[in-house]
Amino acid sequence: MMKCKIVGLLTDFGLRDYYVSAVKAVILSICPEARIIDISHQVTKWNILEGAFILKQSSKYLPEGSVIVGVVDPGVGSKRRSIVIRGEKHYFVGPDNGLLYLAANEEGIKQIIEIRNEKYHLPRSGTFDGRDVFAPIAAHILNGVPISEFGPEIKDIVKIEIPSPDFSGKKLHAMILHVDHFGNIITNIPIAKFLEWKDKSERFLIKIGERIFKASFSTSYELAKTKLFLIPGSSEYMEISVNKGSAAEMLGVKPGDKFDITRD
Amino acid sequence: MMKCKIVGLLTDFGLRDYYVSAVKAVILSICPEARIIDISHQVTKWNILEGAFILKQSSKYLPEGSVIVGVVDPGVGSKRRSIVIRGEKHYFVGPDNGLLYLAANEEGIKQIIEIRNEKYHLPRSGTFDGRDVFAPIAAHILNGVPISEFGPEIKDIVKIEIPSPDFSGKKLHAMILHVDHFGNIITNIPIAKFLEWKDKSERFLIKIGERIFKASFSTSYELAKTKLFLIPGSSEYMEISVNKGSAAEMLGVKPGDKFDITRD
Amino acid sequence: MMKCKIVGLLTDFGLRDYYVSAVKAVILSICPEARIIDISHQVTKWNILEGAFILKQSSKYLPEGSVIVGVVDPGVGSKRRSIVIRGEKHYFVGPDNGLLYLAANEEGIKQIIEIRNEKYHLPRSGTFDGRDVFAPIAAHILNGVPISEFGPEIKDIVKIEIPSPDFSGKKLHAMILHVDHFGNIITNIPIAKFLEWKDKSERFLIKIGERIFKASFSTSYELAKTKLFLIPGSSEYMEISVNKGSAAEMLGVKPGDKFDITRD
Repeated sequence: MMKCKIVGLLTDFGLRDYYVSAVKAVILSICPEARIIDISHQVTKWNILEGAFILKQSSKYLPEGSVIVGVVDPGVGSKRRSIVIRGEKHYFVGPDNGLLYLAANEEGIKQIIEIRNEKYHLPRSGTFDGRDVFAPIAAHILNGVPISEFGPEIKDIVKIEIPSPDFSGKKLHAMILHVDHFGNIITNIPIAKFLEWKDKSERFLIKIGERIFKASFSTSYELAKTKLFLIPGSSEYMEISVNKGSAAEMLGVKPGDKFDITRD
Repeated sequence: MMKCKIVGLLTDFGLRDYYVSAVKAVILSICPEARIIDISHQVTKWNILEGAFILKQSSKYLPEGSVIVGVVDPGVGSKRRSIVIRGEKHYFVGPDNGLLYLAANEEGIKQIIEIRNEKYHLPRSGTFDGRDVFAPIAAHILNGVPISEFGPEIKDIVKIEIPSPDFSGKKLHAMILHVDHFGNIITNIPIAKFLEWKDKSERFLIKIGERIFKASFSTSYELAKTKLFLIPGSSEYMEISVNKGSAAEMLGVKPGDKFDITRD
Repeated sequence: MMKCKIVGLLTDFGLRDYYVSAVKAVILSICPEARIIDISHQVTKWNILEGAFILKQSSKYLPEGSVIVGVVDPGVGSKRRSIVIRGEKHYFVGPDNGLLYLAANEEGIKQIIEIRNEKYHLPRSGTFDGRDVFAPIAAHILNGVPISEFGPEIKDIVKIEIPSPDFSGKKLHAMILHVDHFGNIITNIPIAKFLEWKDKSERFLIKIGERIFKASFSTSYELAKTKLFLIPGSSEYMEISVNKGSAAEMLGVKPGDKFDITRD
């Protein structure tokens, strides 16, 4: 891999405290040439699936050789392992709780190391492995330390996955993966599969619990023919949107909620 | 222009999702030496005028040769054009909806290109030109690609402007341009014009709808003689402030609201 | 000191306006190689003690030679002085209101300069010394300008301190220093002193006003034996936490509140 000295950083730390900057400062004190890109620090607290989804959507665009550090880590200080994954294009550093899995698995996993060698740590405070373990490991990777130095190779790590939607004839059973800043609803329906299932239909009914909403299909926010519409999103999945409004608010839904779509 | 390889980035994406980081990652994957400065990602959703104002206030301080990318883009996926403006000091990249106009016009516009050449794009998802079009174009500019490569030169773009206040003798009719994080009210009254109009007056009445507030003139938050005061702001305009408090809350106002000032 | 060209930046500006980016743009226009790390821009408005605490926790991890700029500055435009502190490891630039003191004092203060030489400023708007004074000074330090160029050496600056807890036998009288993004309560109790005082006790009573809460001692969030627990934090101080919950909300407390701990 080329050595671009870029670190992508995702946490649930928020931006108010000193936590994110301490992680960055430790990286820079070990590898002063590192350039650090914030992926997000506003993952919902302790929400590993949301973090994994955001990490997957962003990391694929980072230059080859980048090191991606993920810290959504409710198990810090417990027995959960700390890992480095070498993927086809990037390194991933973080807790072994699934957070790194979606992104690493998508590009292909070549090697997994359990971080054990304390020589490459700061002394552990016990509540802040982001600063004490993951930041120095990321910086040492940028400095060219072989990851086998950090500990033994392992094979089994915690896996999570995005559930597949259920296409059964006229009805599509799906779920809400994420609600973005604009109120767009990102579903778990892959765009290509939806287009195939939709065929020539342009009108749909979205059923959430007992409530039913009419929706059209659109490829543009401004040009949609109905208030609510299904639109191929920017992250491989179909989205449900309202032009200049919040679809999530209109539908009263949140990540994890399930719904059906039928062709009208 | 010198090649400083700096990108200033303004969006209404918020900081929670993967959107901002995908834009940055695409820039870095094409121009790994780029350094990216966040201008703001918390422009009010779809508010082009607010975005244009913030862009104008910040971009003038960026080093000559910087590329400024603005994405407040309710029309993404519609027929609105994508443009590059070469100004006297900076390049501006974004949608042709007025967002870039205030900043570019202030420094002087030398050339405008409509982005059409798909060779310099990622495949367009249709809902995320920030990542798919503007980020790669910005990176190619940093890499030295002449902007004429991106498409044809155009002359007419969407213009917006900050309305001028109305000075008529004893009364000044003005509007609220922006309310900042501290609750300071940024008005559309240029400082120099206000000082001329004010002459030797130190006491004023601010009339908003039917409500009237007393205000003094001050050049310091701490040393103001009244709770509410008029102060020359940091962005060429007069501001209305309260020391360690929110003037916008005290006056119950928001951007776009109009008011009168009279000399007391 | 080695010249790493890193600037750490802490303000109470929030992230919505153009303020933070104007500070960064000015730094980069004077020192284009500067790399800027955000410490926090969400310090509670005008809260100098909170800013000083966050600055102290973060700045110690920044590489030697970094310049740390702090702007929580309710006195901007008044007679408060602008200063540069040369510490054992870093330079600190900001208002003389205590904000820089905790961090600088911890590493050791070698020299203090009052900023007076207008040659190294932008023209002062009077309300934005972050952009007009501190940013250019920081950039000039990175460019190698000796700090004695900026003005006269001074000896007396504004000091603030973290109050010490009161250990008197069975009862410990302490206060709340900070509540973090997760709702963890950071107290003013140094970890080493607490461990000594605690001796073999594992159960405690926390008394806040008339309310009493049971708490255990834990070194891990997940493995704590009671809902509420005392845990050695990542910033030298004991913290009060709830696993995957907000201790501050459960206890109904905020920074500055006082409480007692007794061994149960």
